[in-house]
Amino acid sequence: MKDKKGLLFVLSGPSGAGKSTVIREVLRRNPALYFSISCTTRPPRQQEKDGFHYFFIDHNQFKAMIARDEFLEYAEYVGNYYGTPLPQIKSKLDAGIDVLLDIEIQGAIHVREKMPESVSIFLAPPSFQELERRLRSRNTDKEEKILSRLKTARAEFQKMPLYDYVVINHKVEDAVSEIESILKAEHCRTAHRMQLIEEE
Amino acid sequence: MKDKKGLLFVLSGPSGAGKSTVIREVLRRNPALYFSISCTTRPPRQQEKDGFHYFFIDHNQFKAMIARDEFLEYAEYVGNYYGTPLPQIKSKLDAGIDVLLDIEIQGAIHVREKMPESVSIFLAPPSFQELERRLRSRNTDKEEKILSRLKTARAEFQKMPLYDYVVINHKVEDAVSEIESILKAEHCRTAHRMQLIEEE
Repeated sequence: MKDKKGLLFVLSGPSGAGKSTVIREVLRRNPALYFSISCTTRPPRQQEKDGFHYFFIDHNQFKAMIARDEFLEYAEYVGNYYGTPLPQIKSKLDAGIDVLLDIEIQGAIHVREKMPESVSIFLAPPSFQELERRLRSRNTDKEEKILSRLKTARAEFQKMPLYDYVVINHKVEDAVSEIESILKAEHCRTAHRMQLIEEE
Repeated sequence: MKDKKGLLFVLSGPSGAGKSTVIREVLRRNPALYFSISCTTRPPRQQEKDGFHYFFIDHNQFKAMIARDEFLEYAEYVGNYYGTPLPQIKSKLDAGIDVLLDIEIQGAIHVREKMPESVSIFLAPPSFQELERRLRSRNTDKEEKILSRLKTARAEFQKMPLYDYVVINHKVEDAVSEIESILKAEHCRTAHRMQLIEEE
Protein backbone atom coordinates (compact mmCIF):
# COMPACT_ATOMS: atom_id res chain seq x y z
CA MET A 1 0.00 0.00 0.00
CA LYS A 2 1.36 3.39 -1.00
CA ASP A 3 1.90 5.96 1.69
CA LYS A 4 -1.21 8.06 1.97
CA LYS A 5 -1.15 11.84 1.96
CA GLY A 6 -1.29 13.61 5.28
CA LEU A 7 -4.14 15.91 6.26
CA LEU A 8 -3.90 19.59 7.09
CA PHE A 9 -5.65 20.72 10.28
CA VAL A 10 -6.09 24.39 11.10
CA LEU A 11 -6.81 25.43 14.67
CA SER A 12 -8.03 28.91 15.56
CA GLY A 13 -9.53 30.44 18.62
CA PRO A 14 -9.75 33.71 20.47
CA SER A 15 -7.03 34.70 22.92
CA GLY A 16 -7.96 33.13 26.25
CA ALA A 17 -9.60 30.05 24.76
CA GLY A 18 -6.63 28.03 25.97
CA LYS A 19 -5.18 27.22 22.57
CA SER A 20 -1.51 26.96 23.58
CA THR A 21 -2.22 24.49 26.38
CA VAL A 22 -4.50 22.39 24.20
CA ILE A 23 -2.01 22.32 21.31
CA ARG A 24 0.87 21.39 23.62
CA GLU A 25 -1.12 18.43 24.94
CA VAL A 26 -2.30 17.32 21.47
CA LEU A 27 1.32 17.34 20.26
CA ARG A 28 2.58 15.49 23.33
CA ARG A 29 0.03 12.73 22.80
CA ASN A 30 0.47 12.62 19.01
CA PRO A 31 4.20 12.83 18.33
CA ALA A 32 3.67 11.91 14.66
CA LEU A 33 1.73 15.12 14.10
CA TYR A 34 3.83 17.94 12.60
CA PHE A 35 3.18 21.36 14.10
CA SER A 36 3.91 24.08 11.59
CA ILE A 37 6.09 26.92 12.83
CA SER A 38 5.44 30.41 11.49
CA CYS A 39 7.94 32.92 10.15
CA THR A 40 8.02 36.42 11.59
CA THR A 41 10.04 39.57 11.13
CA ARG A 42 9.50 40.71 14.70
CA PRO A 43 12.46 40.26 17.03
CA PRO A 44 12.37 37.27 19.42
CA ARG A 45 11.09 37.93 22.94
CA GLN A 46 12.89 36.60 25.97
CA GLN A 47 12.84 32.78 26.06
CA GLU A 48 11.67 32.56 22.45
CA LYS A 49 13.80 30.20 20.39
CA ASP A 50 14.37 30.36 16.64
CA GLY A 51 12.89 27.31 14.90
CA PHE A 52 10.76 26.50 17.93
CA HIS A 53 8.43 29.42 18.65
CA TYR A 54 9.01 31.07 15.26
CA PHE A 55 11.48 31.21 12.44
CA PHE A 56 12.86 34.69 13.01
CA ILE A 57 13.80 36.22 9.65
CA ASP A 58 14.38 39.76 8.43
CA HIS A 59 12.17 41.85 6.14
CA ASN A 60 14.24 41.07 3.03
CA GLN A 61 14.08 37.33 3.62
CA PHE A 62 10.33 37.59 4.22
CA LYS A 63 9.78 39.56 1.02
CA ALA A 64 11.87 37.10 -0.97
CA MET A 65 9.65 34.29 0.33
CA ILE A 66 6.52 36.22 -0.67
CA ALA A 67 8.03 36.70 -4.15
CA ARG A 68 8.70 32.95 -4.41
CA ASP A 69 5.07 32.29 -3.33
CA GLU A 70 6.34 30.36 -0.33
CA PHE A 71 3.61 31.36 2.12
CA LEU A 72 0.33 29.56 2.58
CA GLU A 73 -0.83 32.85 4.08
CA TYR A 74 0.84 35.90 5.60
CA ALA A 75 -0.21 39.13 7.25
CA GLU A 76 1.24 42.36 8.54
CA TYR A 77 0.56 43.23 12.16
CA VAL A 78 1.86 46.33 13.92
CA GLY A 79 4.63 46.77 11.37
CA ASN A 80 5.80 43.16 11.41
CA TYR A 81 5.12 40.29 9.06
CA TYR A 82 3.84 36.86 10.11
CA GLY A 83 3.50 33.99 7.67
CA THR A 84 2.94 30.26 7.35
CA PRO A 85 5.72 28.74 5.23
CA LEU A 86 4.37 26.38 2.61
CA PRO A 87 7.37 24.18 1.55
CA GLN A 88 7.71 22.32 4.88
CA ILE A 89 3.95 21.75 5.07
CA LYS A 90 3.80 20.36 1.55
CA SER A 91 6.71 18.00 2.07
CA LYS A 92 5.18 16.67 5.31
CA LEU A 93 1.76 16.15 3.71
CA ASP A 94 3.38 14.39 0.74
CA ALA A 95 5.21 12.11 3.17
CA GLY A 96 1.86 11.11 4.71
CA ILE A 97 2.32 13.19 7.85
CA ASP A 98 -0.57 15.19 9.30
CA VAL A 99 0.11 18.87 9.84
CA LEU A 100 -1.40 21.13 12.49
CA LEU A 101 -1.49 24.90 12.03
CA ASP A 102 -2.19 27.40 14.78
CA ILE A 103 -3.48 30.38 12.88
CA GLU A 104 -5.63 33.40 13.53
CA ILE A 105 -9.00 33.64 11.93
CA GLN A 106 -8.23 35.82 8.90
CA GLY A 107 -5.31 33.54 8.05
CA ALA A 108 -7.50 30.46 8.48
CA ILE A 109 -9.92 31.83 5.90
CA HIS A 110 -7.02 32.26 3.44
CA VAL A 111 -5.84 28.70 4.07
CA ARG A 112 -9.34 27.43 3.41
CA GLU A 113 -9.39 29.23 0.05
CA LYS A 114 -5.96 27.95 -0.93
CA MET A 115 -6.36 24.40 0.40
CA PRO A 116 -10.08 23.60 0.53
CA GLU A 117 -9.30 20.02 1.58
CA SER A 118 -7.91 21.31 4.89
CA VAL A 119 -9.90 20.73 8.07
CA SER A 120 -10.62 23.71 10.30
CA ILE A 121 -11.30 23.63 14.01
CA PHE A 122 -12.45 26.56 16.13
CA LEU A 123 -11.46 26.31 19.79
CA ALA A 124 -14.03 28.21 21.81
CA PRO A 125 -14.13 29.12 25.50
CA PRO A 126 -17.21 27.81 27.34
CA SER A 127 -18.66 31.35 27.50
CA PHE A 128 -17.74 35.01 27.30
CA GLN A 129 -17.91 35.27 31.08
CA GLU A 130 -15.35 32.46 31.33
CA LEU A 131 -13.19 34.04 28.62
CA GLU A 132 -13.16 37.31 30.54
CA ARG A 133 -12.35 35.50 33.78
CA ARG A 134 -9.44 33.68 32.11
CA LEU A 135 -8.05 36.84 30.53
CA ARG A 136 -8.22 38.67 33.86
CA SER A 137 -6.69 35.80 35.83
CA ARG A 138 -3.55 35.99 33.69
CA ASN A 139 -2.81 39.27 35.49
CA THR A 140 -0.47 40.27 32.69
CA ASP A 141 -2.69 42.46 30.57
CA LYS A 142 -3.88 45.99 31.21
CA GLU A 143 -7.63 46.66 31.40
CA GLU A 144 -7.53 48.32 27.99
CA LYS A 145 -5.91 45.28 26.42
CA ILE A 146 -8.39 42.91 28.08
CA LEU A 147 -11.34 44.89 26.72
CA SER A 148 -9.73 44.95 23.29
CA ARG A 149 -9.20 41.15 23.38
CA LEU A 150 -12.83 40.62 24.40
CA LYS A 151 -14.01 42.80 21.54
CA THR A 152 -11.82 40.85 19.10
CA ALA A 153 -13.14 37.58 20.52
CA ARG A 154 -16.72 38.67 19.86
CA ALA A 155 -15.81 39.50 16.27
CA GLU A 156 -14.03 36.13 15.91
CA PHE A 157 -17.09 34.27 17.20
CA GLN A 158 -19.00 35.63 14.21
CA LYS A 159 -16.63 33.65 11.96
CA MET A 160 -17.25 30.35 13.73
CA PRO A 161 -19.72 29.09 11.07
CA LEU A 162 -16.85 29.12 8.53
CA TYR A 163 -15.12 26.33 10.46
CA ASP A 164 -15.71 22.60 10.00
CA TYR A 165 -15.63 21.86 13.73
CA VAL A 166 -16.11 23.70 17.01
CA VAL A 167 -14.43 22.36 20.14
CA ILE A 168 -15.51 23.99 23.39
CA ASN A 169 -12.70 24.10 25.90
CA HIS A 170 -14.49 23.35 29.18
CA LYS A 171 -11.67 21.06 30.26
CA VAL A 172 -8.33 20.72 28.47
CA GLU A 173 -8.46 16.93 28.61
CA ASP A 174 -11.88 16.78 26.93
CA ALA A 175 -10.94 19.36 24.31
CA VAL A 176 -7.78 17.40 23.47
CA SER A 177 -9.75 14.17 23.21
CA GLU A 178 -12.28 15.81 20.88
CA ILE A 179 -9.51 17.15 18.65
CA GLU A 180 -7.93 13.69 18.53
CA SER A 181 -11.29 12.25 17.47
CA ILE A 182 -11.53 14.80 14.69
CA LEU A 183 -8.01 13.92 13.45
CA LYS A 184 -8.89 10.22 13.43
CA ALA A 185 -12.38 10.58 11.96
CA GLU A 186 -11.17 12.78 9.11
CA HIS A 187 -8.89 9.95 7.98
CA CYS A 188 -12.04 7.80 7.66
CA ARG A 189 -13.76 10.32 5.36
CA THR A 190 -14.83 8.46 2.24
CA ALA A 191 -12.91 10.71 -0.18
CA HIS A 192 -9.68 10.06 1.70
CA ARG A 193 -10.28 6.32 2.01
CA MET A 194 -11.33 5.90 -1.62
CA GLN A 195 -7.97 7.35 -2.62
CA LEU A 196 -6.27 4.64 -0.54
CA ILE A 197 -8.41 1.84 -1.89
CA GLU A 198 -7.85 2.92 -5.49
CA GLU A 199 -4.12 2.99 -4.91
CA GLU A 200 -3.98 -0.53 -3.51
CA MET B 1 -28.23 24.32 28.66
CA LYS B 2 -31.05 22.53 26.87
CA ASP B 3 -30.56 18.88 26.04
CA LYS B 4 -29.10 18.64 22.57
CA LYS B 5 -30.56 16.39 19.90
CA GLY B 6 -28.97 13.01 19.37
CA LEU B 7 -27.32 12.05 16.10
CA LEU B 8 -28.33 9.20 13.83
CA PHE B 9 -25.52 6.91 12.67
CA VAL B 10 -26.06 4.34 9.93
CA LEU B 11 -23.65 1.43 9.60
CA SER B 12 -23.58 -0.79 6.52
CA GLY B 13 -21.18 -3.32 5.18
CA PRO B 14 -21.05 -6.49 3.15
CA SER B 15 -21.61 -9.84 4.79
CA GLY B 16 -18.24 -10.96 6.15
CA ALA B 17 -16.98 -7.47 6.93
CA GLY B 18 -17.40 -8.29 10.62
CA LYS B 19 -20.27 -5.92 11.29
CA SER B 20 -21.94 -7.86 14.13
CA THR B 21 -18.72 -8.16 16.12
CA VAL B 22 -17.85 -4.51 15.62
CA ILE B 23 -21.35 -3.33 16.59
CA ARG B 24 -21.39 -5.53 19.70
CA GLU B 25 -18.12 -3.98 20.85
CA VAL B 26 -19.17 -0.42 20.02
CA LEU B 27 -22.36 -0.90 22.07
CA ARG B 28 -20.49 -2.52 24.96
CA ARG B 29 -18.12 0.44 25.16
CA ASN B 30 -20.84 3.07 24.60
CA PRO B 31 -23.83 2.04 26.69
CA ALA B 32 -25.52 5.42 26.12
CA LEU B 33 -25.82 4.66 22.40
CA TYR B 34 -29.24 3.30 21.37
CA PHE B 35 -29.13 0.46 18.88
CA SER B 36 -32.27 0.42 16.78
CA ILE B 37 -33.96 -2.96 16.45
CA SER B 38 -35.71 -3.79 13.20
CA CYS B 39 -39.17 -5.22 12.69
CA THR B 40 -39.61 -8.34 10.59
CA THR B 41 -42.43 -10.61 9.51
CA ARG B 42 -40.17 -13.65 9.22
CA PRO B 43 -40.46 -16.17 12.05
CA PRO B 44 -37.74 -16.11 14.73
CA ARG B 45 -34.84 -18.55 14.30
CA GLN B 46 -33.58 -20.64 17.19
CA GLN B 47 -32.06 -18.45 19.90
CA GLU B 48 -33.53 -15.28 18.40
CA LYS B 49 -35.36 -13.20 20.97
CA ASP B 50 -38.23 -10.81 20.30
CA GLY B 51 -37.25 -7.23 21.10
CA PHE B 52 -33.56 -8.14 21.04
CA HIS B 53 -32.66 -9.50 17.61
CA TYR B 54 -35.87 -8.24 15.99
CA PHE B 55 -39.38 -7.20 16.77
CA PHE B 56 -41.25 -10.18 15.31
CA ILE B 57 -44.62 -9.00 14.01
CA ASP B 58 -47.13 -10.39 11.53
CA HIS B 59 -47.94 -9.14 8.04
CA ASN B 60 -51.03 -7.22 9.18
CA GLN B 61 -49.12 -5.40 11.90
CA PHE B 62 -46.36 -4.59 9.42
CA LYS B 63 -48.82 -3.23 6.85
CA ALA B 64 -50.56 -1.13 9.50
CA MET B 65 -47.19 0.40 10.39
CA ILE B 66 -46.51 1.16 6.72
CA ALA B 67 -49.94 2.83 6.51
CA ARG B 68 -49.12 4.94 9.58
CA ASP B 69 -45.77 5.92 7.97
CA GLU B 70 -43.95 4.41 10.92
CA PHE B 71 -40.93 3.09 9.01
CA LEU B 72 -37.79 5.04 8.29
CA GLU B 73 -37.29 2.47 5.53
CA TYR B 74 -38.53 -1.04 4.81
CA ALA B 75 -37.98 -3.72 2.22
CA GLU B 76 -39.31 -7.10 1.16
CA TYR B 77 -36.84 -9.94 1.00
CA VAL B 78 -37.75 -13.52 0.05
CA GLY B 79 -41.40 -12.97 0.90
CA ASN B 80 -40.79 -11.33 4.27
CA TYR B 81 -40.78 -7.70 5.30
CA TYR B 82 -37.97 -5.97 7.19
CA GLY B 83 -38.26 -2.40 8.43
CA THR B 84 -36.68 0.23 10.66
CA PRO B 85 -39.33 1.59 13.04
CA LEU B 86 -39.26 5.36 13.21
CA PRO B 87 -41.10 6.28 16.46
CA GLN B 88 -38.45 4.85 18.86
CA ILE B 89 -35.63 6.45 16.86
CA LYS B 90 -37.30 9.86 16.89
CA SER B 91 -38.00 9.78 20.61
CA LYS B 92 -34.38 8.79 21.38
CA LEU B 93 -32.97 11.54 19.14
CA ASP B 94 -35.31 14.09 20.72
CA ALA B 95 -34.08 13.00 24.14
CA GLY B 96 -30.49 13.73 23.06
CA ILE B 97 -29.55 10.07 22.64
CA ASP B 98 -27.43 8.95 19.68
CA VAL B 99 -28.92 6.15 17.62
CA LEU B 100 -27.05 3.47 15.68
CA LEU B 101 -28.70 1.64 12.78
CA ASP B 102 -27.39 -1.54 11.20
CA ILE B 103 -28.89 -1.43 7.76
CA GLU B 104 -28.16 -2.86 4.33
CA ILE B 105 -27.06 -0.57 1.58
CA GLN B 106 -30.36 0.04 -0.22
CA GLY B 107 -32.00 0.90 3.11
CA ALA B 108 -29.11 3.20 4.00
CA ILE B 109 -29.72 5.16 0.81
CA HIS B 110 -33.38 5.59 1.79
CA VAL B 111 -32.41 6.78 5.27
CA ARG B 112 -30.04 9.31 3.74
CA GLU B 113 -32.88 10.67 1.59
CA LYS B 114 -35.30 10.84 4.51
CA MET B 115 -32.85 12.11 7.12
CA PRO B 116 -30.01 13.88 5.31
CA GLU B 117 -28.49 14.95 8.63
CA SER B 118 -27.75 11.29 9.44
CA VAL B 119 -24.15 10.10 9.35
CA SER B 120 -23.34 7.02 7.29
CA ILE B 121 -20.44 4.65 7.81
CA PHE B 122 -19.42 1.85 5.48
CA LEU B 123 -17.60 -1.01 7.19
CA ALA B 124 -15.29 -2.62 4.65
CA PRO B 125 -13.17 -5.77 4.84
CA PRO B 126 -9.44 -5.15 4.23
CA SER B 127 -9.71 -6.78 0.79
CA PHE B 128 -11.80 -9.13 -1.31
CA GLN B 129 -9.32 -11.93 -0.67
CA GLU B 130 -9.80 -11.43 3.06
CA LEU B 131 -13.58 -11.22 2.66
CA GLU B 132 -13.56 -14.55 0.80
CA ARG B 133 -11.30 -16.10 3.43
CA ARG B 134 -13.66 -14.94 6.22
CA LEU B 135 -16.78 -16.17 4.45
CA ARG B 136 -15.17 -19.59 3.84
CA SER B 137 -13.82 -19.90 7.38
CA ARG B 138 -17.36 -19.66 8.75
CA ASN B 139 -17.90 -23.13 7.34
CA THR B 140 -21.65 -22.61 7.45
CA ASP B 141 -22.38 -21.52 3.91
CA LYS B 142 -22.51 -23.59 0.75
CA GLU B 143 -20.16 -22.71 -2.11
CA GLU B 144 -23.07 -21.28 -4.09
CA LYS B 145 -24.02 -18.98 -1.22
CA ILE B 146 -20.41 -17.84 -0.72
CA LEU B 147 -20.10 -16.91 -4.40
CA SER B 148 -23.42 -15.08 -4.24
CA ARG B 149 -22.30 -13.15 -1.14
CA LEU B 150 -19.03 -12.19 -2.85
CA LYS B 151 -20.93 -10.96 -5.90
CA THR B 152 -23.23 -8.90 -3.67
CA ALA B 153 -20.22 -7.51 -1.82
CA ARG B 154 -18.68 -6.32 -5.10
CA ALA B 155 -21.92 -4.55 -5.99
CA GLU B 156 -22.07 -3.02 -2.50
CA PHE B 157 -18.52 -1.69 -2.83
CA GLN B 158 -19.70 0.40 -5.77
CA LYS B 159 -22.01 2.25 -3.37
CA MET B 160 -19.20 3.15 -0.96
CA PRO B 161 -18.84 6.73 -2.31
CA LEU B 162 -22.39 7.45 -1.08
CA TYR B 163 -21.24 7.05 2.52
CA ASP B 164 -19.75 9.78 4.70
CA TYR B 165 -17.10 7.51 6.20
CA VAL B 166 -15.35 4.26 5.37
CA VAL B 167 -13.92 2.16 8.21
CA ILE B 168 -11.70 -0.72 7.12
CA ASN B 169 -11.97 -3.66 9.49
CA HIS B 170 -8.37 -4.89 9.65
CA LYS B 171 -8.66 -5.37 13.41
CA VAL B 172 -11.91 -5.16 15.38
CA GLU B 173 -10.30 -2.99 18.06
CA ASP B 174 -9.09 -0.41 15.53
CA ALA B 175 -12.39 -0.38 13.65
CA VAL B 176 -14.29 0.17 16.91
CA SER B 177 -11.95 2.98 17.88
CA GLU B 178 -12.39 4.66 14.49
CA ILE B 179 -16.18 4.43 14.78
CA GLU B 180 -16.00 5.94 18.26
CA SER B 181 -13.93 8.81 16.86
CA ILE B 182 -16.55 9.41 14.19
CA LEU B 183 -19.34 9.49 16.80
CA LYS B 184 -17.38 11.98 18.89
CA ALA B 185 -16.16 14.15 15.99
CA GLU B 186 -19.65 14.45 14.50
CA HIS B 187 -20.83 16.08 17.73
CA CYS B 188 -18.14 18.73 17.17
CA ARG B 189 -19.44 19.58 13.67
CA THR B 190 -20.07 23.29 13.54
CA ALA B 191 -23.75 23.01 12.56
CA HIS B 192 -24.42 20.84 15.60
CA ARG B 193 -22.41 23.01 17.98
CA MET B 194 -23.92 26.28 16.70
CA GLN B 195 -27.33 24.91 17.58
CA LEU B 196 -26.09 24.34 21.14
CA ILE B 197 -24.52 27.77 21.42
CA GLU B 198 -27.62 29.51 20.11
CA GLU B 199 -29.75 27.65 22.63
CA GLU B 200 -27.60 28.65 25.60
